[in-house]
Amino acid sequence: MESSLKPMDAEQLRENAHKMVDFIADYYKSLEEFPVLSQVKPGYLSELLPVSAPMQPESLQDILKDVQQQIIPGVTHWQSPNFFAYYPSNSSIAGFLGEMLSASFNIVGFSWITSPAATELEVVVLDWVAKMLKLPDQFHSSGLGGGVIQGTASEAILVSLLAARDKILRKDGNEYLSKLTVYASDQTHSALKKACQIAGIYPANFRILKAEQNSSYALAPEALAEAISTDLSSGFIPFFLCATVGTTSSAAVDPLSALGKIAKANNLWFHIDAAYAGNACICPEYRYYIDGVEEADSFGMNAHKWLLTNFDCSLLWVKNRSALIQSLSTNPEFLKNKASQENRVIDFKDWQIPLGRRFRSLKLWMVMRMYGQENLQNYIRNHISLAKKFEQHVLSDSRFEVVAPQAFSLVCFRLIPPPNHHENSDTLNYSLMNSTNSSGKIFLSHTVLSGMFVLRLAVGAPLTEERHINEAWKVLQDQATTLLGSF
Amino acid sequence: MESSLKPMDAEQLRENAHKMVDFIADYYKSLEEFPVLSQVKPGYLSELLPVSAPMQPESLQDILKDVQQQIIPGVTHWQSPNFFAYYPSNSSIAGFLGEMLSASFNIVGFSWITSPAATELEVVVLDWVAKMLKLPDQFHSSGLGGGVIQGTASEAILVSLLAARDKILRKDGNEYLSKLTVYASDQTHSALKKACQIAGIYPANFRILKAEQNSSYALAPEALAEAISTDLSSGFIPFFLCATVGTTSSAAVDPLSALGKIAKANNLWFHIDAAYAGNACICPEYRYYIDGVEEADSFGMNAHKWLLTNFDCSLLWVKNRSALIQSLSTNPEFLKNKASQENRVIDFKDWQIPLGRRFRSLKLWMVMRMYGQENLQNYIRNHISLAKKFEQHVLSDSRFEVVAPQAFSLVCFRLIPPPNHHENSDTLNYSLMNSTNSSGKIFLSHTVLSGMFVLRLAVGAPLTEERHINEAWKVLQDQATTLLGSF
Repeated sequence: MESSLKPMDAEQLRENAHKMVDFIADYYKSLEEFPVLSQVKPGYLSELLPVSAPMQPESLQDILKDVQQQIIPGVTHWQSPNFFAYYPSNSSIAGFLGEMLSASFNIVGFSWITSPAATELEVVVLDWVAKMLKLPDQFHSSGLGGGVIQGTASEAILVSLLAARDKILRKDGNEYLSKLTVYASDQTHSALKKACQIAGIYPANFRILKAEQNSSYALAPEALAEAISTDLSSGFIPFFLCATVGTTSSAAVDPLSALGKIAKANNLWFHIDAAYAGNACICPEYRYYIDGVEEADSFGMNAHKWLLTNFDCSLLWVKNRSALIQSLSTNPEFLKNKASQENRVIDFKDWQIPLGRRFRSLKLWMVMRMYGQENLQNYIRNHISLAKKFEQHVLSDSRFEVVAPQAFSLVCFRLIPPPNHHENSDTLNYSLMNSTNSSGKIFLSHTVLSGMFVLRLAVGAPLTEERHINEAWKVLQDQATTLLGSF
Repeated sequence: MESSLKPMDAEQLRENAHKMVDFIADYYKSLEEFPVLSQVKPGYLSELLPVSAPMQPESLQDILKDVQQQIIPGVTHWQSPNFFAYYPSNSSIAGFLGEMLSASFNIVGFSWITSPAATELEVVVLDWVAKMLKLPDQFHSSGLGGGVIQGTASEAILVSLLAARDKILRKDGNEYLSKLTVYASDQTHSALKKACQIAGIYPANFRILKAEQNSSYALAPEALAEAISTDLSSGFIPFFLCATVGTTSSAAVDPLSALGKIAKANNLWFHIDAAYAGNACICPEYRYYIDGVEEADSFGMNAHKWLLTNFDCSLLWVKNRSALIQSLSTNPEFLKNKASQENRVIDFKDWQIPLGRRFRSLKLWMVMRMYGQENLQNYIRNHISLAKKFEQHVLSDSRFEVVAPQAFSLVCFRLIPPPNHHENSDTLNYSLMNSTNSSGKIFLSHTVLSGMFVLRLAVGAPLTEERHINEAWKVLQDQATTLLGSF
């Protein structure tokens, strides 16, 4: 019995993929016409779709019609020039082409042998970016460390935490897990809390240190030193510090050098999460933000956020790869092969949570080559300059205030309730955010800083130009006028 | 300062992506000309590439030339019709088009609001596949359970283990971690061991039960019952059982019903790893292999292995989604939104390790629609029939033997050393594998069963036809003749 289905016929692939290219290019042409934030209601799609998969094939034409009519209304358009929420998730032509190529090889690169090019290109390209960031030599593949592509910063933090945990448990025994303490500021990404949950760190042993407004929401070294000292005298084992360059709420930067020295003096693993703002450090004028990285054991930066490389592409560098490998390796018979057994190669399966992995270095390599370092630097500079323009807008309207120092491409601001306004500041800004996002014209998100509800506008979509910033500001002004007028 | 770079211009995207389509279609046309297993030496690529990223842009043409000359020689061609190693990793036109579409939206779907279509399509399509597999109603989204796309089976196992672990630790306290015991056969995928390492399960508490040759390498229920009973009487807390449908070595199937009843009677979480063979269970005639799934708490099947959906697309269904969510949720301020706060939607970030996630349901949806259930069933049937043909070849040549019962699309076999041959069976078959793989004509891998080095031939690449099976057998026969002749 031969199947009549030809699921990978080269000429059918060519014909259909050309159609898909045109569909996608047309999507990008009409991108600004869609509401940025999807306006559908929960459950909208199950009402539109059949309850079972079809028994017989359907045409690509019918499927693309459904993408247009059923899927796209439910998409929140992260690539829209009017997307200002969270932090950006960059696509680009080069990144997209890299995804295409990777999907066509469709390899599962757990070990070197399963596609040597996947492992080796990753090593080379991570060295390239390490150079662009001027990371210390120990993070390069030539020494004891090296870089690896993780899916997300969550995984980068988790594998670093596990490497640190297991260094101690291997030495002291598993029962010391209850003594291990972790340190970070209250501005640290929730990924650290989740990593602690996964790794079995006792919830009570996660020391969340308050980052004060007067230090611009950066972690104070004194607070860290004191917490460690208290824990040591109570018999705990301080083992992990996570500092952030560009926090999620306000893009605050922790003082790496001072924190790192305390970590080192106390034998803590020092991880730096620079998921968003690390990207800016490829520009010489912003490189000082990661001064102190030489104290770190691991450093993470998401090229998928702000370096034109499609999601997912989270870069992690470690100084000592054997710590990762000792924590995460398994070596079952069915994966054994000569190159691995002779220790002549890297098997990235031992640097990450999953076994399988996609050929993600292709897209990063294509981004580096199709754009070049100078363009990438200018790309970042342009967004930071646009954020400064937006901050100027906010400062020019006395109804608003800038809440935290403008940093990188993020502006944190709020509408100030007029005297005798019936709503407090939080409710007012919540309303402003909702009415703005419901307009579909722009999408921005919020945070809470010092107990205050604050709007965040993060510039970073590849298509965003000055006109979009000006228009976004006008939308916010108009919404504010309506809101305050209704008072 | 406006950047001159246009990283996402729709017309440049169109032009370049069309070129990439032709490059990829041409790759598939010439796929059989390349050695299946890459023949490069460790370090080959770093010698070819520059040590730094270019400062200035390079052309797509130059990059594609380098893909051809530098990258492709280092690719092991998983999509080649002559790829028979490990288990397959399926690409298809529909899966590829789905990846293109997903990469073009490039959303980060952690919460419903970040693209409702991504979450809702995933719910619908996982229900579709649940129906195709005739999974009990509790695994459907209409009840307390539901399905989710993980990256890999490793992650599916890990999140199930964490949900099970935390159900107990929440109740009893973290200090009971030391008492938790896990059960699986020695044929279970190494992903379980790794999941235990990550979750902090004490290494000594991982009970690896021997699956005997006389039970075709399936886990004996008696062995499980005895191990649990011994642990209970020693004060341990048995909490997790992983059974396998289609083990990595020999595609053995554990007796789910009997094991599940023991698990249930002892309050263990029962996970079924059907990563590869679960795909076959969409055919009514193979569905009995997962009889007993009604006893399970979680069930995993990798559509990226054998259901024409590009990697990664690992499907996990759970009966009780709240166990997952309680273990894996975090709810930071910056992600709060109305739909989530009102519990009207699913936020898949709380069902997985990472925060961010790609729009992976698109490719699975496109596969279901472009092929339809009947074609998918026939696709599986064809591979199983090809594997049977290969087994017939092996049985027809008295120099060889079939080592384990042919199951699904896998054949385990070996060359028998002739009397007085100077090499033992393991060395001989190791040589046969290496010489065969070095020929570049086919790629197959090995395992060890009952201490014996065994060759595995797994049919499952989308382009594999009967002629490839016949040719593969001829290659093996010729290599064997050469090897035995040199004796």
